Amino acid sequence: MNIPQTSFPRVVIVGGGFAGLAVAKGLEEQELQVVLIDKHNYHTFQPLLYQVATGGLEPDSIAFPLRKRFNDVENFYFRLAEVVNVNADKNTIETSIGTLEYDELIIATGSTTNFFGNTNIEKYAMEMKSVPQALNIRSLVLENFEEALLEKDLEKRHALMNFVIVGGGPTGVELAGALAEMKKGILPKDYPDLDIRQMKINLIQSSGELLKGMSSKASEKAEDFLIKLGVDVWKNLRVLNYDGETVTTNGEDHFNAQTVIWAAGVKGETVNGLQAECLVERANRFKVDMYNKVVGYENIYAVGDIACMQTEVYKYGHPMMAQPAIQQGTLLAKNILAKFKGKKQKEFVYNDKGSMATIGRNKAVVDLPKWKFQGVFAWFVWMFVHLFSLIGFRNKVIVFMNWVYNYIRFDRETRLIIRPYKKKDKYSFEEN
Amino acid sequence: MNIPQTSFPRVVIVGGGFAGLAVAKGLEEQELQVVLIDKHNYHTFQPLLYQVATGGLEPDSIAFPLRKRFNDVENFYFRLAEVVNVNADKNTIETSIGTLEYDELIIATGSTTNFFGNTNIEKYAMEMKSVPQALNIRSLVLENFEEALLEKDLEKRHALMNFVIVGGGPTGVELAGALAEMKKGILPKDYPDLDIRQMKINLIQSSGELLKGMSSKASEKAEDFLIKLGVDVWKNLRVLNYDGETVTTNGEDHFNAQTVIWAAGVKGETVNGLQAECLVERANRFKVDMYNKVVGYENIYAVGDIACMQTEVYKYGHPMMAQPAIQQGTLLAKNILAKFKGKKQKEFVYNDKGSMATIGRNKAVVDLPKWKFQGVFAWFVWMFVHLFSLIGFRNKVIVFMNWVYNYIRFDRETRLIIRPYKKKDKYSFEEN
Repeated sequence: MNIPQTSFPRVVIVGGGFAGLAVAKGLEEQELQVVLIDKHNYHTFQPLLYQVATGGLEPDSIAFPLRKRFNDVENFYFRLAEVVNVNADKNTIETSIGTLEYDELIIATGSTTNFFGNTNIEKYAMEMKSVPQALNIRSLVLENFEEALLEKDLEKRHALMNFVIVGGGPTGVELAGALAEMKKGILPKDYPDLDIRQMKINLIQSSGELLKGMSSKASEKAEDFLIKLGVDVWKNLRVLNYDGETVTTNGEDHFNAQTVIWAAGVKGETVNGLQAECLVERANRFKVDMYNKVVGYENIYAVGDIACMQTEVYKYGHPMMAQPAIQQGTLLAKNILAKFKGKKQKEFVYNDKGSMATIGRNKAVVDLPKWKFQGVFAWFVWMFVHLFSLIGFRNKVIVFMNWVYNYIRFDRETRLIIRPYKKKDKYSFEEN
Repeated sequence: MNIPQTSFPRVVIVGGGFAGLAVAKGLEEQELQVVLIDKHNYHTFQPLLYQVATGGLEPDSIAFPLRKRFNDVENFYFRLAEVVNVNADKNTIETSIGTLEYDELIIATGSTTNFFGNTNIEKYAMEMKSVPQALNIRSLVLENFEEALLEKDLEKRHALMNFVIVGGGPTGVELAGALAEMKKGILPKDYPDLDIRQMKINLIQSSGELLKGMSSKASEKAEDFLIKLGVDVWKNLRVLNYDGETVTTNGEDHFNAQTVIWAAGVKGETVNGLQAECLVERANRFKVDMYNKVVGYENIYAVGDIACMQTEVYKYGHPMMAQPAIQQGTLLAKNILAKFKGKKQKEFVYNDKGSMATIGRNKAVVDLPKWKFQGVFAWFVWMFVHLFSLIGFRNKVIVFMNWVYNYIRFDRETRLIIRPYKKKDKYSFEEN
């Protein structure tokens, strides 16, 4: 891997998402050597992937080059690689570009789509956890419309214009809202010779409420917003299968749809080599103590989505979202420094600053600890918070300009099919 | 193709580049049905592709959705398709999505990379005529640096950091300049553990001057700028072969390089079905009369790069650039309207407004008919003209913001490997 041996202890961080980045930032300019490993050369701002998928933002504006973030940091090394195995007894990791010794290992590999073992759905449905995946959705939506235009068979045309989003969490809700806005403002103009009423957006949620984990007010209002935008919301309906043509459910309804987006679950993106006992079956996460230390190891930590820290309040670990990841990462960096200095480490306490989701233009729901509100103001709060959280000044400016433009012009202009997507291609890319 | 038959004559335009777009614009809101066919759903602003390839601009900012451009135009139809064949005797074209009758057919298919029959070079060298191709270059450059970092064999590392650009026209010059600026300002910061002096940028030109067709002052100054930026300029050197490892030439020099970008020629992207006599062998263009009518046909036109209009001054047809394409397209639209109205048509006269090329920050060369200048002012003129020529307000704003940012911060921030490129993949994409 061509990383020099120095007298400083080496901290290896696997993953440059919210958690990994927070750890790396906290360890800057210390008497440590920090190695950050990621399979991408950029950090992905996942909360805005749905806007890339629906033509509202260019992919490059929500991705930030990891090397640039640490340009002037001493004793910092970035390596573009995938981890193959951890050899905990030797204190090494094997990667796609070689083996590396570590003194402290931080696993921040995040999460991936959870198909709950349904290989059919995995094969035919779209997922949206990375920039290339979001671009695949963007291409497919537009390709479907081009095809629908030519399709004389009414059933087939309906299927091309039928969108099924499985999962009523923030991702599903935001994506459904964005598609509904495309249906309202953009697609009728782009495809004047199609009857846009034939376009259906179905949001399917297995439980009785959307945005589980938010307040019931937020949940109800989000549903209300979606219905007003023309989304068909199906609650208490569980998807059983999708064969590339038809979505079958545990109810009497089934859906003939060429596009199914699976946003119904995530699971930890584990690394091989740790003892089986560390793995919590539910959501496939590594069990950690209150210091994010993986149980049974002294110098291996898991942080963010991949970590399952079970507490009184969070019996199954913290929510797999940006906030716990950032907070855990920030504290873990401090605790590692404390460890080296022989100082006392601090237990993690999650400070839930609240949750929010946007449904569309002027429509969002925000739950703060002491105040819950919905509508226009919530929407501005949502935008401000997301803009502020983006990494990089250029990205902030470009996203802001796009939002202003989209707001004023009722538009989403990056509706481009740069790399056409074919269903059979799903596994032909090295990296989806 | 699902396009209604109306009482209006049908004009079919193949290609939404500069020429095709100019024709389509000129035929808006007339008593005609206009069908625009393109294999992409967007117009590509090719003059800025090199900035996408070198991380200075996001791809989406130089692409504009074709459907949007004609959103409110009546009797206008866009179809995403490739033309397979023209049946001139039946007045139909066969496409990937079916057959279509035309009254007037306008071929504006542009040009593609000309490898002059060298299949080795075609197989191993990169080209840069489309957005996906520019993104492939962006990925490859960055992947090479990641690999160089790990490479202990000095010769191999040199080859990974050795860039050969073949062709000293505007594309080659601009790309060499942009790479040189990456070498100067960005790569040393991103890869502090690499010796950046090992990076070489070679620009190879077969004749004795760069920017052939521009003034000798422009040519000399461009070379001067490039050399100052650290580019090795090789004139009077002809590339004979590239086997994926070594570029051989007709001189004593050869180059071991992992990245070769072929910008040494273009040829017309012809369509099948027209009489062989129409095809001018040189550059593979269709021979047209002074009205852009393909010789031997009454209702088939070729316009832009694909058209070879031989005049006293332009013995081999006009330069294959945006300006003649736009001017021909604009006049052709007028002439078609005149034809339908029984009015007199006008012969095309090319109004050469001048040429320009940028080499880097504050460095450009501009030849106007009456004034030739180089340097900072030329650079601002170059930027203003390109910004002004971009299609779409959003694109103008985003490009402008990026340029301001890049200028102030000496940066190029979209150095992202979104879809990794592998040499063997060159032909695995439907569309490169």
